[in-house]
Amino acid sequence: MLGIYFDEVRKKAPLVHNITNYVTVNDVANILLACGASPIMSDEPEDAEEITAICGGLNINIGTLNKRTISGMYAAGCKANELGHPVLLDPVGAGASTLRTNTAQGLLDMLKLDAVRGNISEIKTLAQGSTSTRGVDADVADAVTEESLESAVAFVKAFAKQVGSIAAVTGAIDLVADENRCFVIRNGRPEMGKITGTGCQLSGMMAAFLTANPEHKLEACAAAVCAMGLAGEIAWSRMQDGDGNSTYRNRIIDAIYHMNGETLDKGARFEIR
Amino acid sequence: MLGIYFDEVRKKAPLVHNITNYVTVNDVANILLACGASPIMSDEPEDAEEITAICGGLNINIGTLNKRTISGMYAAGCKANELGHPVLLDPVGAGASTLRTNTAQGLLDMLKLDAVRGNISEIKTLAQGSTSTRGVDADVADAVTEESLESAVAFVKAFAKQVGSIAAVTGAIDLVADENRCFVIRNGRPEMGKITGTGCQLSGMMAAFLTANPEHKLEACAAAVCAMGLAGEIAWSRMQDGDGNSTYRNRIIDAIYHMNGETLDKGARFEIR
Amino acid sequence: MLGIYFDEVRKKAPLVHNITNYVTVNDVANILLACGASPIMSDEPEDAEEITAICGGLNINIGTLNKRTISGMYAAGCKANELGHPVLLDPVGAGASTLRTNTAQGLLDMLKLDAVRGNISEIKTLAQGSTSTRGVDADVADAVTEESLESAVAFVKAFAKQVGSIAAVTGAIDLVADENRCFVIRNGRPEMGKITGTGCQLSGMMAAFLTANPEHKLEACAAAVCAMGLAGEIAWSRMQDGDGNSTYRNRIIDAIYHMNGETLDKGARFEIR
Repeated sequence: MLGIYFDEVRKKAPLVHNITNYVTVNDVANILLACGASPIMSDEPEDAEEITAICGGLNINIGTLNKRTISGMYAAGCKANELGHPVLLDPVGAGASTLRTNTAQGLLDMLKLDAVRGNISEIKTLAQGSTSTRGVDADVADAVTEESLESAVAFVKAFAKQVGSIAAVTGAIDLVADENRCFVIRNGRPEMGKITGTGCQLSGMMAAFLTANPEHKLEACAAAVCAMGLAGEIAWSRMQDGDGNSTYRNRIIDAIYHMNGETLDKGARFEIR
Repeated sequence: MLGIYFDEVRKKAPLVHNITNYVTVNDVANILLACGASPIMSDEPEDAEEITAICGGLNINIGTLNKRTISGMYAAGCKANELGHPVLLDPVGAGASTLRTNTAQGLLDMLKLDAVRGNISEIKTLAQGSTSTRGVDADVADAVTEESLESAVAFVKAFAKQVGSIAAVTGAIDLVADENRCFVIRNGRPEMGKITGTGCQLSGMMAAFLTANPEHKLEACAAAVCAMGLAGEIAWSRMQDGDGNSTYRNRIIDAIYHMNGETLDKGARFEIR
Repeated sequence: MLGIYFDEVRKKAPLVHNITNYVTVNDVANILLACGASPIMSDEPEDAEEITAICGGLNINIGTLNKRTISGMYAAGCKANELGHPVLLDPVGAGASTLRTNTAQGLLDMLKLDAVRGNISEIKTLAQGSTSTRGVDADVADAVTEESLESAVAFVKAFAKQVGSIAAVTGAIDLVADENRCFVIRNGRPEMGKITGTGCQLSGMMAAFLTANPEHKLEACAAAVCAMGLAGEIAWSRMQDGDGNSTYRNRIIDAIYHMNGETLDKGARFEIR
């Protein structure tokens, strides 16, 4: 069911503008190529608008933000909104520092976002809202488990409604929701947390999937999340004695490179609540 | 015939200053080490001149440029010119935005470059010239194929004459020319386009080959282009079931690590027109 | 004997703030995850203090420094000192340019450092002192070999006393000293020098080991140095025909991923002088 959204990425080969952190940017670029999209990176305010204009979608990731790149994020985001391009926000470290929280919240207030993807802690921070917005009740557990699932699903839906976009909370169980429906996704492996940037890579892919599937945003985001988790499972099955997190990183990108709609449909494990 | 230029790199171990984008910079550093050169990176204007002064050559790549690093590019470029060091320009994204086009054109106007390497679209953009220079006829096809080869060769030679440097247009067929001679190179594999930064890596290697072979600049650039393409072929032959673009990236750098003049001479496929 | 300091890292999973160069930052993040620590990167002055405050230790690496990130280094360093967090300095390129030398020297003068790690050339530069400090005699050979070992050990101890921190000089033989004792470490392989960033990765690990072992700083640093060298040996033993420096990089991180106190104790090769 979700495979068709992956196939659209390979068919349309969307060009995605990424303003992302310098820690994991190479892996983001390679996983975008692996899934059939094309990456371009530009964070200089004077350059970012024009680069966004030639792309189909925008991925904003605030890891290693600085004042110059924050300006680039606003400039690119406004331009993408003006042109109707999908925009995704990855609020890396929201809650960990004032600058990160305020930047994420400011982008959320200023831009029309199509998706926000983070871990539960980052999303809870944003759910509290800014001085100009009223937040939803973020009194939810700090990890999404089978026990906390029901309240977590309700929280993610409420957050999606609050911010008017798809909300994706990724962790041991991944939740991808709009205000009405939530994909509860059980792909992936815990060892993915031992690689830097699997979240950043997923955000890049989600932006590509959104760009290729503008009429089915929730399904597109869910497909990207399932694909990333499934890639983690396939990559793990190819690990040999002595392989560790660096090789695992390569194998995950390799697994996306070989994935298509059919393999995604066979391996995706989700329910809709 | 071209192998001797590779052997010179291993013999002289040139130190190359790279002002390059943060997306692919790690791969550029590792491929420079793989071919026998040493990389150093510095983009702060106050630092760049002195770093250039202790190096033998300079590689300027404008991907992820910003106003600060553009100043660093000019400062380092002027110093390298003053010292007679080879300078290569990789005009990433020229034509895609005003800042990129103007920066590439400005560097081309201001500096004495030894080589310019880009894809056909970037080089066509530069061929149109700036307000202060007159461009050559860039009415050439958007891809170099067997059908468009003759006009493409003429175009690359004319561009080399216009800018007074070696010109390298890389793609399915690679062209490396000065105003009189053009190496038409048929090494490489299409899958290299699914890895981020093979072009950036090649630019770094070309700067190293130029630095080690100052008396044979055209041959040095052609040797680097053949080596990169041949590495793509060798790496592909080592790919196993399930390997994708991330592993391919590693294997290409590994192939350069094991290459020398003799293996290059055996595998290089080119003609001179 | 040193294994227990590695086990402490896995047990405590320290969060380490890294202000480090964009060339090797991804490998630094992955090796920190591999050894059981967690990395976070932030170099914006307005952000760096708060990020340091949520971490346990700080790793400052001046490769690809710029004026903005230098401010971030001072801000984070002062905050870490205030909070009593361990701080490590990797003075990449000290001696190669005025900005690098002055920045490293300034950080050394201003901050209370727990460890300084560099190659012999960088440490000799710092040993000469600034206008406000008096340096030790740096008339020592430019490489640490069996022949120059005695004078090198004396030099590193004197430098450690001068700067009031652990001093680590890494190369063919690694020396890790305080003013009284010097670990002479003979792990590692020469091929590690053909990978970009093994030094940066080691600095990240040393910061993690210091953070997890605040009562045994010298031993913690020596354990990290032995672990990195041993990882280079284990990784080399897993190299296959055609593998080169890019694969070697992955295998070294993989080897750290599988290492623990027991394997470190079996493989560590050092004496104390």
